[in-house]
Amino acid sequence: MIIQLEEKIKSTDKENILSSVNAIGYKITDVKTQAGNYLVCIGKNEFDIRLVGSLHGVKDVHRVSEAYKLVSSKWKVGSSTIDLGDDVKIGDGKCAVMAGPCSIESEEQVEKIVAHLVQNNIKIMRGGVFKPRSSPYAFRGMGIEGLKMFHRICRQNGIKIITEVMQVSQIAEMHEYVDVFQVGARNSQNFNLLDELGKVDKAILIKRGMSGTIDELLQSAEYIFSNGNEKLMLCERGIRTYENAYRNTFDINAIPILKEKTHLPVIADPSHGIGIREHVPVIALAAMMAGADGVIYEVHEKPEEAVSDGQQTLNFYESEHLIRRLNANIQLK
Amino acid sequence: MIIQLEEKIKSTDKENILSSVNAIGYKITDVKTQAGNYLVCIGKNEFDIRLVGSLHGVKDVHRVSEAYKLVSSKWKVGSSTIDLGDDVKIGDGKCAVMAGPCSIESEEQVEKIVAHLVQNNIKIMRGGVFKPRSSPYAFRGMGIEGLKMFHRICRQNGIKIITEVMQVSQIAEMHEYVDVFQVGARNSQNFNLLDELGKVDKAILIKRGMSGTIDELLQSAEYIFSNGNEKLMLCERGIRTYENAYRNTFDINAIPILKEKTHLPVIADPSHGIGIREHVPVIALAAMMAGADGVIYEVHEKPEEAVSDGQQTLNFYESEHLIRRLNANIQLK
Amino acid sequence: MIIQLEEKIKSTDKENILSSVNAIGYKITDVKTQAGNYLVCIGKNEFDIRLVGSLHGVKDVHRVSEAYKLVSSKWKVGSSTIDLGDDVKIGDGKCAVMAGPCSIESEEQVEKIVAHLVQNNIKIMRGGVFKPRSSPYAFRGMGIEGLKMFHRICRQNGIKIITEVMQVSQIAEMHEYVDVFQVGARNSQNFNLLDELGKVDKAILIKRGMSGTIDELLQSAEYIFSNGNEKLMLCERGIRTYENAYRNTFDINAIPILKEKTHLPVIADPSHGIGIREHVPVIALAAMMAGADGVIYEVHEKPEEAVSDGQQTLNFYESEHLIRRLNANIQLK
Amino acid sequence: MIIQLEEKIKSTDKENILSSVNAIGYKITDVKTQAGNYLVCIGKNEFDIRLVGSLHGVKDVHRVSEAYKLVSSKWKVGSSTIDLGDDVKIGDGKCAVMAGPCSIESEEQVEKIVAHLVQNNIKIMRGGVFKPRSSPYAFRGMGIEGLKMFHRICRQNGIKIITEVMQVSQIAEMHEYVDVFQVGARNSQNFNLLDELGKVDKAILIKRGMSGTIDELLQSAEYIFSNGNEKLMLCERGIRTYENAYRNTFDINAIPILKEKTHLPVIADPSHGIGIREHVPVIALAAMMAGADGVIYEVHEKPEEAVSDGQQTLNFYESEHLIRRLNANIQLK
Repeated sequence: MIIQLEEKIKSTDKENILSSVNAIGYKITDVKTQAGNYLVCIGKNEFDIRLVGSLHGVKDVHRVSEAYKLVSSKWKVGSSTIDLGDDVKIGDGKCAVMAGPCSIESEEQVEKIVAHLVQNNIKIMRGGVFKPRSSPYAFRGMGIEGLKMFHRICRQNGIKIITEVMQVSQIAEMHEYVDVFQVGARNSQNFNLLDELGKVDKAILIKRGMSGTIDELLQSAEYIFSNGNEKLMLCERGIRTYENAYRNTFDINAIPILKEKTHLPVIADPSHGIGIREHVPVIALAAMMAGADGVIYEVHEKPEEAVSDGQQTLNFYESEHLIRRLNANIQLK
Repeated sequence: MIIQLEEKIKSTDKENILSSVNAIGYKITDVKTQAGNYLVCIGKNEFDIRLVGSLHGVKDVHRVSEAYKLVSSKWKVGSSTIDLGDDVKIGDGKCAVMAGPCSIESEEQVEKIVAHLVQNNIKIMRGGVFKPRSSPYAFRGMGIEGLKMFHRICRQNGIKIITEVMQVSQIAEMHEYVDVFQVGARNSQNFNLLDELGKVDKAILIKRGMSGTIDELLQSAEYIFSNGNEKLMLCERGIRTYENAYRNTFDINAIPILKEKTHLPVIADPSHGIGIREHVPVIALAAMMAGADGVIYEVHEKPEEAVSDGQQTLNFYESEHLIRRLNANIQLK
Repeated sequence: MIIQLEEKIKSTDKENILSSVNAIGYKITDVKTQAGNYLVCIGKNEFDIRLVGSLHGVKDVHRVSEAYKLVSSKWKVGSSTIDLGDDVKIGDGKCAVMAGPCSIESEEQVEKIVAHLVQNNIKIMRGGVFKPRSSPYAFRGMGIEGLKMFHRICRQNGIKIITEVMQVSQIAEMHEYVDVFQVGARNSQNFNLLDELGKVDKAILIKRGMSGTIDELLQSAEYIFSNGNEKLMLCERGIRTYENAYRNTFDINAIPILKEKTHLPVIADPSHGIGIREHVPVIALAAMMAGADGVIYEVHEKPEEAVSDGQQTLNFYESEHLIRRLNANIQLK
Repeated sequence: MIIQLEEKIKSTDKENILSSVNAIGYKITDVKTQAGNYLVCIGKNEFDIRLVGSLHGVKDVHRVSEAYKLVSSKWKVGSSTIDLGDDVKIGDGKCAVMAGPCSIESEEQVEKIVAHLVQNNIKIMRGGVFKPRSSPYAFRGMGIEGLKMFHRICRQNGIKIITEVMQVSQIAEMHEYVDVFQVGARNSQNFNLLDELGKVDKAILIKRGMSGTIDELLQSAEYIFSNGNEKLMLCERGIRTYENAYRNTFDINAIPILKEKTHLPVIADPSHGIGIREHVPVIALAAMMAGADGVIYEVHEKPEEAVSDGQQTLNFYESEHLIRRLNANIQLK
């Protein structure tokens, strides 16, 4: 059960609600976010929900039987919109496009990609400075100095930044330079990281785990929301299956299912989803047709020279062509 | 190596070609189809391909390194078109639509669905009369008598029939009443069935196995083609993964990959691909956007009363709406 | 519900039982096997099972809620034993060993392997004459003539034969020369083949499909049993997963689960289960420890020269060593 | 390439080695562990390895082509042994047994389980105080105070402790109270955590990820080793597959493959591996037969009352029986 509280609830009314719910035998989590105050109440006893609904200070009450509560569409119908400022929004019915290199490599690289984005009216740039790599001997990113440079160039050009955070201690140092914190597939169930990202007032994009279920992804999102941050979006990026003709198997089914089960915006990552450059654009288009609120893909001036993920990265020409097709199709959704 | 022979090759020229290839140490399979005569030559020795190309009677020679040969796009670029007669074609750049119930149930049921198809200008009806069922105690279809009835009503209305064949002995009895033989997911590697379907002059649709790889699907198609039948199409119908939020995981990646690797038309089955009625339409649209040559889906007057697969079957209203969206989108592909 | 009938039931009593069960609204399948006469009754209405149990001619009645009935351990506790004659048994508490080459290749090959088996007191030889191959251009086995030769040599040496049957039309021609018909992984849901094997009085070994579930395997076995053949055993041979460090992932869990759910003997195929020669023996031992009633593995005089599956085939020395360890361990189970 | 350096290498000799390797164009990682000093050198240029081998201060040189280096059996043959002190060892040819509850719940619970362990001569107790839970509303463990209590009781009874660490900030506070840090399946690729655990002089057990490959597990181990900690062991705990008859699919193949590829001890977790109490013992036995160096399983006085994982937890009677069978079988390995 989720109890939405009135914005200016009196403390005596709140205490009354808490003790009433306790009396039913439910465990309460008191959640304050940027947008509201909720009580998430968990228990199994039967009771008349109207008794709760009629208490002073209660704005609304909803039964949510799933393991995830606040991210469920059972209490909040329709897509939530995330506002990054300067009229950059995600989940507003248009197709949000986020593009950029796998790794931030140099000032020159960032400048060229930013120019490409500006030219194509793309407002959000992706780019990793802390890179999770299978091998300890591989390039692990430019780190915080790379992020500062990345941020400086983007700010000069009106571009928002999405970049991966890998551990709790990075949150504070990255905070000033980031518009959206990305949680990577390997950290999709790093619960301590999720807890802390719930305490931050920045947007978060959580990727589904390599073999994460829909349900696990929604519960991971619940970690963040229940810690106080509702500026959240989910990302389908391909799952691990027996098929090895492609890097991952993009799970197109996940798009409509997530849109049904949650009010959070759903983003598609076709670059990781298929992992083959020539086919990234059609997967992006298919995802949009299936209901995605946006796409995040990899672009680089010279994909063949990228320090990582070149084989799934579009060049500027391919990227421009994709954007044109996305814009043409958005009308038909 | 594939050697395409001249249409009216002299027998002495052919003998000369055969002995020349034998001399290289290659094993030859002589394939005669509706459209041509090919020699599929398999071996590992090095040789100068121009020596073969210059022989009398040779139309063209192609190296194909994959395990599948005749179905490869390495020798035949672009999509093959399958002509079912009466201007009903698959693979001609438009979106072929095949719709109908999971199981043929009764004359009344067929008549109603045929009327729906006619009204929406759909030319191919699906419907099973031999049903592969996990349990021996489940309904296993109306059998050959059901097929005759199905055929009679369709012929009166200018509708082509696609239906599943489960075993070799059914081919002859079904032959007269079928326009496209469907090979189900469970028979995707029933090699004896594939061999025999290669000897038939009817179109064949092969579904990918439950956990079949792209490569296995193409090799299964090679069985049919190499036995003499090139009227062949492939069908992605969802694969088995760890995720159980849906019946199968529709593998959208398979669409562009198959279109790259083969010249055969590629059909999407969104009904089995997601298995949830509400979401079948967006998966169909996504598949088309990804490059599918057609879709096959389940429709029934009253899905909730269907003897099988009701939970993934559209009603007439939903079906009509989907067709309208498919037609609108085909322009944008 | 399964109703076991008295051996010498009067026809009037049987009619009475049938009409009583019909009256409850249950669909009845009348099953006569080598060992008994059963009525498998399927329906959802509530009724007092004692009313059925007290009818004349009823030996026993059991509720079985699973989709599979006659193969369930819910009505028959303990392992069924299959007697191949000459004191060769499977499921009698000892470890049945079946070994032999992937493919029957020549008289000389068979003679050498038979000698190896005789020397090590192994009573059942495997060897394929009809081979399911992904590619139509690969070696597809010696066929029926190979089987006759295989049979002649085995009979002279007191060895029983297990070999794969791929299609219905082969059953009759193979019947005389086979002790156990094997259904391969690709035919695990070839229901027409299963139906026909249910009508034969020979033992059957069904392999689990590539990505077959435990439940599907049991339902496939139900096809055979419900057609009249209870001389049945199941085989775990590795499943398809995301991991490609080995050919398949041997599912050790399947062994105890199948032993819990069914009374049929359970055999392990470690050769396909891991697909790497050096590790076949420990997988065989592990399977036995987990409760398998027997193992089936590949052995060849010169694995590196075998026409198929050489990389997972033991040589005589390795095979002998494995048998010794299996015998030592059987005491400890 | 791995260069093992002499224990008392002169700094000039080391500098000479470094510059020689640099000259070849290889990137060097200088690794100092509890046991030695290694240079991990990565590059693609061809060179004569004897030139390196003959330099002063070089103890040995090995080519290792895999992505993982120091954990590979290519340079260190045979199993590494981890010594926890007081004659408690892992990887010494015997079967190390670690048992205990999923979660540490109370003093009374710990005392009872410790008594059970002492009675059965088990020297290592598992028990979580920081619990990774899918839902934010579930019990997340007793935390550091629970660990202190757990430690106190174990120390009084000569029992070593293995417990899960979930994030970098916990390492320091847990350090004093832990004998083996466990990295859970969800953190198997939490590279920052792995980095930090490489800097600690305590043994580490890394679990394979939910859908982690053999190769990924070994590379995760390489993170720890290359940061300086070679007291490392790996744990197979079941993988995620399409089969849902059990919680996970215990990958028995992983045991012999890991034993082949690495010198690190390999532990089996049959509790998570099958997730069904009745079948945990045979999976433990099978794993040992397949070559595991030890097992870790869940035990509780009253599994049905455990706060977590009760359905896969043995009671004392079952645990005792398992230990007896493990001891009987260890002779036969």
